[in-house]
Amino acid sequence: MAQSRIAIIGTGLIGTSIGLGLCARKERGYEVVGVDRDRGNSRLAKKMGALDREVGSLEEAVDEAGLAIICIPVMGARRVIADISKLLPAGAIVTDTCSTKADVMRWAAEFLPENVHFIGGHPMAGKEHSGPQNATADLFTGATWAITPSPRADEQAVSIVLGLVESLGAIPLFVDPGEHDQYAAAVSHVPLLTSVALFRMVRDSQGWEDASLLAGPGFRDLTRLASGDPTMSRDIMTTNREAVLHWLGRLQNELDTIRKAFESGNEALYDLFTSSQLDRDNFIQNPPRRRMPEGIAPPAAQDSIGRLFVGGLYDRLKEAQSRPPVKRDDAALKRKLGIKDEEP
Amino acid sequence: MAQSRIAIIGTGLIGTSIGLGLCARKERGYEVVGVDRDRGNSRLAKKMGALDREVGSLEEAVDEAGLAIICIPVMGARRVIADISKLLPAGAIVTDTCSTKADVMRWAAEFLPENVHFIGGHPMAGKEHSGPQNATADLFTGATWAITPSPRADEQAVSIVLGLVESLGAIPLFVDPGEHDQYAAAVSHVPLLTSVALFRMVRDSQGWEDASLLAGPGFRDLTRLASGDPTMSRDIMTTNREAVLHWLGRLQNELDTIRKAFESGNEALYDLFTSSQLDRDNFIQNPPRRRMPEGIAPPAAQDSIGRLFVGGLYDRLKEAQSRPPVKRDDAALKRKLGIKDEEP
Repeated sequence: MAQSRIAIIGTGLIGTSIGLGLCARKERGYEVVGVDRDRGNSRLAKKMGALDREVGSLEEAVDEAGLAIICIPVMGARRVIADISKLLPAGAIVTDTCSTKADVMRWAAEFLPENVHFIGGHPMAGKEHSGPQNATADLFTGATWAITPSPRADEQAVSIVLGLVESLGAIPLFVDPGEHDQYAAAVSHVPLLTSVALFRMVRDSQGWEDASLLAGPGFRDLTRLASGDPTMSRDIMTTNREAVLHWLGRLQNELDTIRKAFESGNEALYDLFTSSQLDRDNFIQNPPRRRMPEGIAPPAAQDSIGRLFVGGLYDRLKEAQSRPPVKRDDAALKRKLGIKDEEP
Repeated sequence: MAQSRIAIIGTGLIGTSIGLGLCARKERGYEVVGVDRDRGNSRLAKKMGALDREVGSLEEAVDEAGLAIICIPVMGARRVIADISKLLPAGAIVTDTCSTKADVMRWAAEFLPENVHFIGGHPMAGKEHSGPQNATADLFTGATWAITPSPRADEQAVSIVLGLVESLGAIPLFVDPGEHDQYAAAVSHVPLLTSVALFRMVRDSQGWEDASLLAGPGFRDLTRLASGDPTMSRDIMTTNREAVLHWLGRLQNELDTIRKAFESGNEALYDLFTSSQLDRDNFIQNPPRRRMPEGIAPPAAQDSIGRLFVGGLYDRLKEAQSRPPVKRDDAALKRKLGIKDEEP
C-alpha cells in the first residue's frame, strides 16, 4: 500500500490531540509530520507520540503531503495558507481547526491554487489550558466538528476530511462559513467574553481576597474560558467582530431583562428560573440532531475513514473533480437573526 | 458509648450527600434520621443508604436530636427554624446549608431558645442537577464550607459543626454573615444569573436550532447553573437582592469595558485576555489561603470529628456556655466594596 503524508501545522492543544488520535491507529497508510513556530511544542508533540516526525519548516512539513491540517490561532492562518500555496503537491487537501471560518475561507480562495482542495473545519472542543502538554487522543470524542467545504473542493476530498473527523470520534456538521461565525459568536465567543467579564469583576474588586475564598465550582466553571490562549481569543474577536458585538448586545439585553424581573417581584424570577431549567434540561437530555447539507450525500463513515487510512490520500493526489458551489444569502441570515445592516 | 441523633431536614442533593458521608463512617456513635416535604425524596435517601431512618414529620426528625442540619432552599428555613424551636431538646445544635446567611442568622436569633446553638453553614459545592438521585458521599471533598456561628453558640457546638464539615472532607471558613452574602453574590449568585442570561440569549433567538448544534463544552459549562433548582435560585435572589443587584451592575460595567476594548483595537483586547489568563491561572494554581477568625482558636480536627462521632453530641446535650458576640460593621464593608447607601 502506498504511504501518504499528513502534515499538522501548529502542534498546540488541538494539533497535538489530532496527532495523538492519528498515531494511535494501528493500521494506517500515512505518516504524520508536525511543525510549530515554537519548536519546543513540536518536539514535545513528537515525544508524546503525536507525530512520526517533527520538522523545522513549513516546506518540509507539506512536502508531498496529501493532507495538511492548520491548527493555529486564526489570524496566523492567512500567512500559512499563502506560504503553503506554493509548496503543496497538486491534488492536496487542506483543512484547518480555526475558531472562525469566513476569513479563513476567503484566504483559501485567495491563495490556494485550483488543484488544491480546501475544506474548512472547527472542532467544538477544547480545554481550560492550551498547549501540547494538555493534549489527549480523546479530546474530540463526541464533539461536533463544523465542516465548511470550499465551493471547488471535490467530493472525495470532503470525504477524506470526514474520515479524519470521524476517526477522531467527532461528529461532522456541514455549515455555511457565515452561519458558523454567527452561531459560534453566540455559543462560544460571547461565552468567552462573559468568562473574562465575570472573572475581572471579582478579581478587580476590593473584596477579591475574601471573595475568592468562597469561590466554588460554579465560579471556576464559569470563568474557565478566561484561562484560554490570549492570541486565540484576540484573533477570534478580530475576525468575528461584527457578530460578537451583536451577540454581546443581546447578552446585555438579557441582563437588563433579569434586572427588570427583580423589580417585577419573586414570581417573575421564579418563572425565569423555571423556564430556563426546563429548556436547558431539555437541551442537555435531547441534544439537537445533526443534518447534512442539501446536495451532499453523507458518505459511509467506513468508506471515508478507509480512504484516509489505507492509502486513499496517496491515490488521489493527482485527481481533481468539481462540485457546483453552494451559495448562501448573507442578508437572509441577518434578517433571520434580527441583525440590522448598520450593526454594530 | 451513648448514641446521639443527627436530623437531616431536607434530603435533596445536599442533605442526601451529607447523609451518605455520615452513614459511610464505620465507627460512629450517632443515628441519622431524615425528613423531607417530598416523602419520595426521603425514601430515596433512605434507600441510597444516606439515612438510618426516614420519618414523616419534623417532630419525629428532631426528637432528641443533638444536631439538626437544615438543607432546604433558604426561604423555607424561616418556618422550619420557627417550628423546630419548640421541638428541640435543650443543648441541641442547629446548622444549615442555605445559600445566603444574613436572613437565616436573623431567623435563628428570632426563634431559637437560648439553650439551642445555631451555627450557620454554606458548603460551596453543588452539581448541575439537584435531587437526592444526584447525591454522592464525596460531593464536599475539598470544598470550602462557610461557617457563621451565632454570637451565642458555644465553642463546643462550633467545634462539633467543624467536625461535621471536616468529616465530609470540606474546608471550614469562618465568615461574617453579611460578608458571606456580599461575596457569595459575586462568586455564586451573579454567575447563576449569567448562566441564565447566556442560555436564554441563545435559546430565545431565531437561530437556536442551528446554534445549538454548534454548542460545545464551553456553552454547556457556562450555562450549567441555569439547570439549578428554580426555588433555590429564586430564594437566593429574594434574600440577597441588594448585594446581587450591586454585583450585577458591576458585571454590566465589565461588559461595557469589554465593548470599549473592541473600539480601542486589537492591542486592548490582547491585553485584556493576557491579564485575565495570568490572573486566573494564578488563582487556580495558588488558591487563596483560609484564615480563622479573630478570637476563635482552630480546634484540632480529630478532636472535633471525635466529638461528633463517638458520643460527644450526646454528652453535651444539657450543656451550655456563652461566647461574647463578634460584631461587624456593615457600613465599613459597604465602603470597602464601593457600595453606595442608596443602592440598589
